[in-house]
Amino acid sequence: MQTLHALETPALILDADRMQRNIARLREHLRPLGVSLRAHLKTAKSIEVARAMMDSKHGSATVSTLKEADEFAAAGVRDMLYAVSITPNKLAHVSRLRQQGVDLTVVLDSVEAAQALSDYCIASGEKISVLIEIDSDGHRSGVRPGDALIVEIAKALQHCELRGVMTHAGASYGSFTDEAKVAMAEQERAAAVSSAQMLRGAGFAAPVVSVGSTPTALYAKSLAGVTEVRAGVYVFFDLVMAGLNVCAVEDVAISVLATVIGHQREKGWIMVDAGWMAMSRDRGTASQPVDQGYGLVCDAQGRVIPDLIMSGANQEHGILSIRAGSSAALPDLPVGSLVRILPNHACATAAQHDAYVVVNAQSDITAHWPRFRGW
Amino acid sequence: MQTLHALETPALILDADRMQRNIARLREHLRPLGVSLRAHLKTAKSIEVARAMMDSKHGSATVSTLKEADEFAAAGVRDMLYAVSITPNKLAHVSRLRQQGVDLTVVLDSVEAAQALSDYCIASGEKISVLIEIDSDGHRSGVRPGDALIVEIAKALQHCELRGVMTHAGASYGSFTDEAKVAMAEQERAAAVSSAQMLRGAGFAAPVVSVGSTPTALYAKSLAGVTEVRAGVYVFFDLVMAGLNVCAVEDVAISVLATVIGHQREKGWIMVDAGWMAMSRDRGTASQPVDQGYGLVCDAQGRVIPDLIMSGANQEHGILSIRAGSSAALPDLPVGSLVRILPNHACATAAQHDAYVVVNAQSDITAHWPRFRGW
Repeated sequence: MQTLHALETPALILDADRMQRNIARLREHLRPLGVSLRAHLKTAKSIEVARAMMDSKHGSATVSTLKEADEFAAAGVRDMLYAVSITPNKLAHVSRLRQQGVDLTVVLDSVEAAQALSDYCIASGEKISVLIEIDSDGHRSGVRPGDALIVEIAKALQHCELRGVMTHAGASYGSFTDEAKVAMAEQERAAAVSSAQMLRGAGFAAPVVSVGSTPTALYAKSLAGVTEVRAGVYVFFDLVMAGLNVCAVEDVAISVLATVIGHQREKGWIMVDAGWMAMSRDRGTASQPVDQGYGLVCDAQGRVIPDLIMSGANQEHGILSIRAGSSAALPDLPVGSLVRILPNHACATAAQHDAYVVVNAQSDITAHWPRFRGW
Repeated sequence: MQTLHALETPALILDADRMQRNIARLREHLRPLGVSLRAHLKTAKSIEVARAMMDSKHGSATVSTLKEADEFAAAGVRDMLYAVSITPNKLAHVSRLRQQGVDLTVVLDSVEAAQALSDYCIASGEKISVLIEIDSDGHRSGVRPGDALIVEIAKALQHCELRGVMTHAGASYGSFTDEAKVAMAEQERAAAVSSAQMLRGAGFAAPVVSVGSTPTALYAKSLAGVTEVRAGVYVFFDLVMAGLNVCAVEDVAISVLATVIGHQREKGWIMVDAGWMAMSRDRGTASQPVDQGYGLVCDAQGRVIPDLIMSGANQEHGILSIRAGSSAALPDLPVGSLVRILPNHACATAAQHDAYVVVNAQSDITAHWPRFRGW
């Protein structure tokens, strides 16, 4: 079997055993809560990973781009939610996907967008299905729960198929304690359920109540009234999630394989051939208690090297050094040594690569899975 | 002719007139200095842009990955410098490129790497050409000028073709005044020239003295002793370069086209369908006097909207708001409006896209140029 030494670097490595454990963990958490999982495939962007995440090859799934919808449709996924507010210039693309037999739901959060969609449905003779986005935590898009605008939007959707509401508690990425995550999950649930009830009170059926973020999905105690949960980053986890105590560092399933290219010994620097192009510029741990730089460094077998981080990054050069304040020794890593660097943010790092090199727990290569990207 | 309204968003827009002006500016600056330009193609990663930058379709060129070398070799480029220290796992790839007729030079900065390359040359029967990397400013890789190690490395390269030295003054990205940029250019020149002279003094020919970064290339007063200049980002420029006064904001040739998807009016937020996936996570202006967030917003014709920046970014959502401290009014941009967002860092933003939509000064679409990426 091929080993990592057969690869050119940098390369994106996926530990399939860790991934399967991460997938099983969320499934087991959600089962007693009585909701279905609509896996968010924006982290993976891979047919093989998607199939491991979904209950069926037909879905259900969440996507962040219509390019994802195209790729997953070609692989047989038939039930998808496109979870970014729809724009007029994407409606012809939505129609093409629906004509292929994809039950594609869109989202929006304004009367203007609802009227534009309704007008499009009149013109095209379609009844496009839609969820109203609810703002459960003030971090991004959506209508605040309790706002009469929710019903105004529903009224403007008369030529569409209004299915209900969706929300995403992205503020859960600031929830460091278990109690905060549990509370954020309840806030997300309550915002979505109360909004659906407001619609029902106004005479709209609103059968779908969709919530989700990886921290809230894993920490929700009750999902009463919720019909589906969306989460994506849980499939790989990352240092941001480990910093939130949502997972252990040892659960992080992807890493970037790099080779030592030199040293600046008087500065305590080890140079590698992976920079921000391979890691992304994501510095999501910079605002956490432990700043991991551009990533935490492991040996070629995936074992963490204590306090060795990528402290600086140029396009194709990374600078590894011991974390400020640590007394750990700089390891002896001669030119040509392989290291594996855990990412701050799985979605951002994976997006820099066109394939996963899949390994088992012994770091033997078992497969190459393509990724896609773009819009 | 197609207009930007025909596109799905987000999309990467290239103003070809601005690009041609940027290319002409560096050519005109370098001509009286008597050096050749070895254009760095890591920013562009496009055959069409590369041809506009190079003096001939055969080169010369600089690349940051062997994937770039493969793509440009297939397009006829025959003279390339791969400007990241070479690793053993890439040597077979280097040989394949050389067997295709590419004069590919590699770089390194240690005796270990030199011995490994020399051993490889003995085994393969090749004489691979190589430059020794000099550290002209302490920012990354390379041997300090004056260090006897330079000659030790040269001695270890006996089975290779040692061509000379190269350096990159990346610290020029911290040079805000014209005087500082002129001084950094001279520091870069002197480091490279003195290192080449050290090699010549020890009996090595060292015909090549290669320097370059966009700020030093444009501000060098003398390049005496230098044989070639490398620069890349000058082809498009970006907000980091504008913040350094290397260019004007109106010179920035690429932007990300996005559509307004909603508003959070009480917060002064305009939401668009371009987030960090379309812009990259690069926050290169955060350490400059004017922080541009994730980018500076223009209207669909490319005219700057005063003080409107992308202040927040999720994967596919951007938050536009007025810069803190500004009294500028939030513009009226209804759902469906198009905007163009100038990037902090051209290399990072362009890397998130698979094509350039090329426009003229009237914002009419004149071409689509593919990009590539990966390693």
